[in-house]
Formats: sequence, structure tokens, C-alpha cells
Amino acid sequence: MTRIVEPAENPPPEHVVVERQGAVQTIRLARPEKKNALTVAMYTRCVEALRAAHADEAVRVVRLIGQPGVFTAGNDLADFMQAPFDANSPVLQLLRSLVHAEKPIVAAVDGPAVGIGTTLLLHCDLVVATDRARFQMPFIKLGLVPEGGSSVLMPALAGLQRATEWLMLGDPFDAHAAREAGLVNRVVEPAALEETSWALCERLAAQPAEALRLTKAMLRGPQRAATAQTIEAEAAVFMERLRSPEAMAAFAGFLSKAAPR
Amino acid sequence: MTRIVEPAENPPPEHVVVERQGAVQTIRLARPEKKNALTVAMYTRCVEALRAAHADEAVRVVRLIGQPGVFTAGNDLADFMQAPFDANSPVLQLLRSLVHAEKPIVAAVDGPAVGIGTTLLLHCDLVVATDRARFQMPFIKLGLVPEGGSSVLMPALAGLQRATEWLMLGDPFDAHAAREAGLVNRVVEPAALEETSWALCERLAAQPAEALRLTKAMLRGPQRAATAQTIEAEAAVFMERLRSPEAMAAFAGFLSKAAPR
Amino acid sequence: MTRIVEPAENPPPEHVVVERQGAVQTIRLARPEKKNALTVAMYTRCVEALRAAHADEAVRVVRLIGQPGVFTAGNDLADFMQAPFDANSPVLQLLRSLVHAEKPIVAAVDGPAVGIGTTLLLHCDLVVATDRARFQMPFIKLGLVPEGGSSVLMPALAGLQRATEWLMLGDPFDAHAAREAGLVNRVVEPAALEETSWALCERLAAQPAEALRLTKAMLRGPQRAATAQTIEAEAAVFMERLRSPEAMAAFAGFLSKAAPR
Repeated sequence: MTRIVEPAENPPPEHVVVERQGAVQTIRLARPEKKNALTVAMYTRCVEALRAAHADEAVRVVRLIGQPGVFTAGNDLADFMQAPFDANSPVLQLLRSLVHAEKPIVAAVDGPAVGIGTTLLLHCDLVVATDRARFQMPFIKLGLVPEGGSSVLMPALAGLQRATEWLMLGDPFDAHAAREAGLVNRVVEPAALEETSWALCERLAAQPAEALRLTKAMLRGPQRAATAQTIEAEAAVFMERLRSPEAMAAFAGFLSKAAPR
Repeated sequence: MTRIVEPAENPPPEHVVVERQGAVQTIRLARPEKKNALTVAMYTRCVEALRAAHADEAVRVVRLIGQPGVFTAGNDLADFMQAPFDANSPVLQLLRSLVHAEKPIVAAVDGPAVGIGTTLLLHCDLVVATDRARFQMPFIKLGLVPEGGSSVLMPALAGLQRATEWLMLGDPFDAHAAREAGLVNRVVEPAALEETSWALCERLAAQPAEALRLTKAMLRGPQRAATAQTIEAEAAVFMERLRSPEAMAAFAGFLSKAAPR
Repeated sequence: MTRIVEPAENPPPEHVVVERQGAVQTIRLARPEKKNALTVAMYTRCVEALRAAHADEAVRVVRLIGQPGVFTAGNDLADFMQAPFDANSPVLQLLRSLVHAEKPIVAAVDGPAVGIGTTLLLHCDLVVATDRARFQMPFIKLGLVPEGGSSVLMPALAGLQRATEWLMLGDPFDAHAAREAGLVNRVVEPAALEETSWALCERLAAQPAEALRLTKAMLRGPQRAATAQTIEAEAAVFMERLRSPEAMAAFAGFLSKAAPR
């Protein structure tokens, strides 16, 4: 397989492909050569795509999908360390956009969904995953802390003991564990992911439009303000951690291990 | 099987049979010829039965059960469209009665439990279901929105993704899915439903009376005010939706399909 | 097996064995001759052990474990009835210590975990149990009410219907049910409990120390005040119940049944 390696500091827009088909806008992470590791440019592109979906009356449902075999390896650490992480960082803007999205979001996960790749699913309305999906929130291994609302939403969903295991040990878990915990709606074979997630989007798009909008507002609305606040509070601790010797040492160790041999 | 069709506008009290046996008051939905579809008169009868159970010191436990093969098809739409739905509607009175009930309620579900047939279970303390029970909250298909507290209680119980699936797609789910989500305590064969639900009621009735009352108060009390408020807020949106062209069109389509061919 | 019966009113400190090995402090309930029934002295010893763990910078993780075949039969009723239960009771002090613990607690359960033996697990961060573990909260059978935060935390974890079953019927449930409900992280064979719980402690102790501390703070912090308040509110009702004729009769019946034949 030929891999085209793009320079990380200036990713072209093609690393996120946005396409509208009927009432469904698909946001496709498309940087397979880096396992869909998310750069600042990719976060920005996702935020724009969500904004466009919100503004376009023809769009009723958003689908978020990765590549065959990988949803996302998480934050691109090399890229991440070049841009200061602050309250305006695109990653935070993406999380805010997801929390405040008014149209339903269907996520489709195959392969690894690391870090924010797992926490962003908490803000999606339906999640389909393949039996080779692997979820992981390994923040602690880098000396970091839970983000994306996970410190509150994951215990609320999966219970404190299970959320603790995932966030304190940082081990990966599979689609069946995720389904049992309530994070995943359906587990399908890899070949069926595209079609199953598409069919769900089409079914949602066919529902009475205003009832659909109101149903999402009623399900998500009561927790929206608290969730947004949790994300900001977590980000404040996260930023402090990034500057800590503990995290710096963990990052250095991780990057040296991740370096090409 | 001979079916006696009663005029919907004036259902006799027999559509809800209330009987006390020992310390257990059974409320039995008994309109099998219409799949136990709930009329204004039936809601009223249930409210009266709950009030009587509350007032009667001899009653310690309430059992709510349907007919073999059907719990309830939900709101009787024809009946519903004849009476204006407002803040004093018997359906709302029933939900309020369930939320404020001080004595434990055991629900027994066989066959379809549609709409309020599923949402009222959120307010029951123990739920037994048969392996042919089918739960469904298809409000959205009628252009309507979650009711009965389900927009908040269902995500709290089953997680947001699962609650979203049930409320946004409106698909039925079986007793095993309901048990896994925590809505159902036990799944039994249809022939065992009457006996199993009865045995649970008897066991509850045999517990120290004041400890039983306090246990329910401690489990339900902390959420009672918020739940009551959610029900009212949902009802306000629900009433607005009923007057919307979207819902009217959906109702018209549904009733034309449901009409005898 | 020779059983050494100690006088309940003056249990030696050996009924709780505290040992530090590396960064892990193990608190081992060690009164097998009374199925680890908890006395005032044992609660006090546990509180001291948690305080020592908190003060000792070398300790990063606490492990709480019982004996092979028994976690704890719960409160030692004979001992309990000799000491007045008030706001300073060691059992309450233990619950408060668990709620406010800043270092992760790993619980390891084999055999019965009765009453507080189950409710204290709600305050542990990871729980390993064997396939012969039996959880039970039979307060109601003694005319008592939920304690240890269970009236709020158990519904939040397992859902209201499941929590109701466990607290209103008081039946035991096994490790698989506990795992499904989210109370237990892993189910292992009895022979593997010591090692598995130890390995989890070691893995936690190896995480970046400050990230570990912050992760627990972020997961537990948001609920800590409310949980502490629930425990106090429950205790107030519990104390009142102890003085009730209903509970006294239930206790008398229980003790007469439990007396040696």
C-alpha cells in the first residue's frame, strides 16, 4: 500500500472530507497515513463543517466517520506541541460545537478511537462501531487528565467504577464493552459500517423535522450547560498539566518510543 | 374469539379492573379488543385506583398489569383527539399520581407496551416482563416529543445513546434489551407473568411496613420534584406539537393507515 | 480448621491487618471466625488506616480485601447494639473517610459482602470480585433503611428498578449481576483475587502520581459533597429506625434465629 505522507504542519483540507448527500452531511476523517491523528487544521475543518451543517436548512443529520480500520489515533502530538493549547484552541472549539449541535450526529467507528476519538462520542447521538473498534482514553499515561466532558459524562453513562477503569488505567476496550456500557448502539462487521451508519442517518432525516429537532433539544438540553462547563473546567486542568514536569517527561518518553525506527 | 367493541367515547369502568387481595391492589387494564389502548376514562379510573390505594391503610403494594399478550397499545388516538389535551388531562394526572405514589408499584408487561405504556414504567418500582414484551416510544413518528419524564429519566437509566435510539428512531425493543438497560427486573415466560408479579407484590407486602415506605421515599424522593417538573415541561411542548401542521399531517397519515380496510 | 473466638466487645487490632508494600497499603479484614462482621473497633482501625494512607506520601493506592470466602457479613449486630449509633459512630467515620479519600481504593471481594460490605464498594474506585461473591443490602429485613449513600448512588449506577430490587427485597446478587450493573470491574476465580487486585494496585501506583490524584479528584469531586450529604441524611433516618418498635422486633427475631443452636 502506497502511503502519501503529508507535512503535519500544513495539512491540506483533504484530511477532512465533507460531503452532503440529500439531508445528510458526512464529515470523514481522511488522514489514513497518520491513522487519522487530528491536527489543528483538521479540528478547524470539522468545526467549519458543523457550522455549515447548522446553517444549511437542507441538512438534517450529520455523520462523523473515519477510515476503514481507523477512526482516529487521537490528537496529533507533534502538531499539538507546536500550537499553544488555550481557550481558543480548535480542539476546544470542536468539543463546544458538538455539545451545542442542534442536529443529530451519528458516529461510525472502526479500529482505534483514541483519546478525543472516544470522548467526542459522548456528544454524538447514535454510535455504530465495528467489532474491531478499540476505544481508549489514555490521558493518564501522558500525565494528563480526562477531557471532553468525560470526567462527568463517562461515569454518568457507564458508572463510576467502569469510567475509573478506563480513565485511570487507560486500557483499550472493545465495541462489546462499549455497547454494554451504553456508549455504542450497534456493533456491526467492518464491511457494514458505511451502510449501517448511512441507513441510520437516512431514517433520522426522514423523521418529522421539527419533532426531530425538539427531541434532540429535550434529550441534550438539560445537560448542555453543565457539560459545556465541565469541558472548560477539564481544559483548565489539562492546560496546567501540559506545563507540568510530569507530563513533559511522559510526552518525551512517548514521542521517543513513537519515533520511526 | 368473540370481541365486544365498546364505544370509545363512553368506556365502561370495566376497561380497568381494580381488585384488592390482601395487601395488594391490582390495577388491570382490560380493553383487549382495542389492545388496551388508553382512553380518558381509563386514565381517570387508574388515577382513582391509585388514590384509593394511597388512602387505604390495608394496601401496601400496587400491581399494574395488562392482558395476556398486550400491556397497552398506548394512548387511544381516536379518543385522544376528541378531548382537548391540557394541564388537567387525565393522562397527566396519571403520570403525576405515579410520580408521587408512596407505595411500591410493580408493573407486569406482556406484549406491546407502546408510548405511555413504556414511559410509565419509569415510575414503577419493579418491572417484570415476558419474553414477548415489546417496548416502544414512537412519539416522533407522529411529529410528537418525549413525554412522561422520558426525556430525562430514560437517558439517566439507559444512557443518552440508547435513549436517543429509542426516542429518535421510535423502534420497538424487547424485554432483554429493556432488562440490560435496567428498565426491567425480570424476564419470564408469558404463563409465569401473573404469578411472578404476584409473588413480588406479596414479598414487598411482607416487609416491615414503615421501612418499606421509607425505602421508597429515599429512592424516589430526591428526584421527585425534578421529575414532576420534567413531565410538565414535556407536556407543554407536547401540547404545542399537537397543534402543529407537522403532527396533524402525521396523525392523519397514521389514522388513515390504522382504519379498517 | 480451628476457630479462635475473640470477645466481641474488645477486639484486638489484628481483626484488621494493615500492611504497606511498596506504594500500596492493604487493609485486610481479618475476623474470619465471625465472617468478618464489623465491630466498632474494626471500623476505627479502618479509619486510622485510611488516615495513615492519606498522610503517607509513599502510599499511592489503597487495597481493601477480606478473607478467602468472605468479604464481610456486615455490621456485627451484637457489637452494634452495645454502642449507641450517633453522628460520631466509627461506621459513619469510615464512610466519610471513603468518600473523601484522595488516593484510589481497590476493593477485592470474595464470598458474602453484606450491608455496608456492599454499600462501601460504591466509594471504591475499582472492584474485583470472585464468582462466589454475594452482594446483599438486607437493611429492610431488619426494619432499617438504605445507608452509605446507597439510596442515591445505587440508582445512579444500576438504575432505579434494579436498585429498588436490591434494597426493597434485600436479596443477594452475584458478581455477574454486579458487573453488569457497573459495581464490579472484573470477575475472577477465588484463587486469582489476591493477585488480580494486587496487579491493579501496582498498575495504578505506576501511573504519573499527580495525574492519578487529579483523575480521581475529577471523577469523584463533582459528587463528593452531595454524597456526603446523602450519607448523613440516611444516617439520621437510620438512627430513628433503630429506636422504632418495628426494627426492634426485626432485630430480636434475627438475633434469636442467629443464636447458636
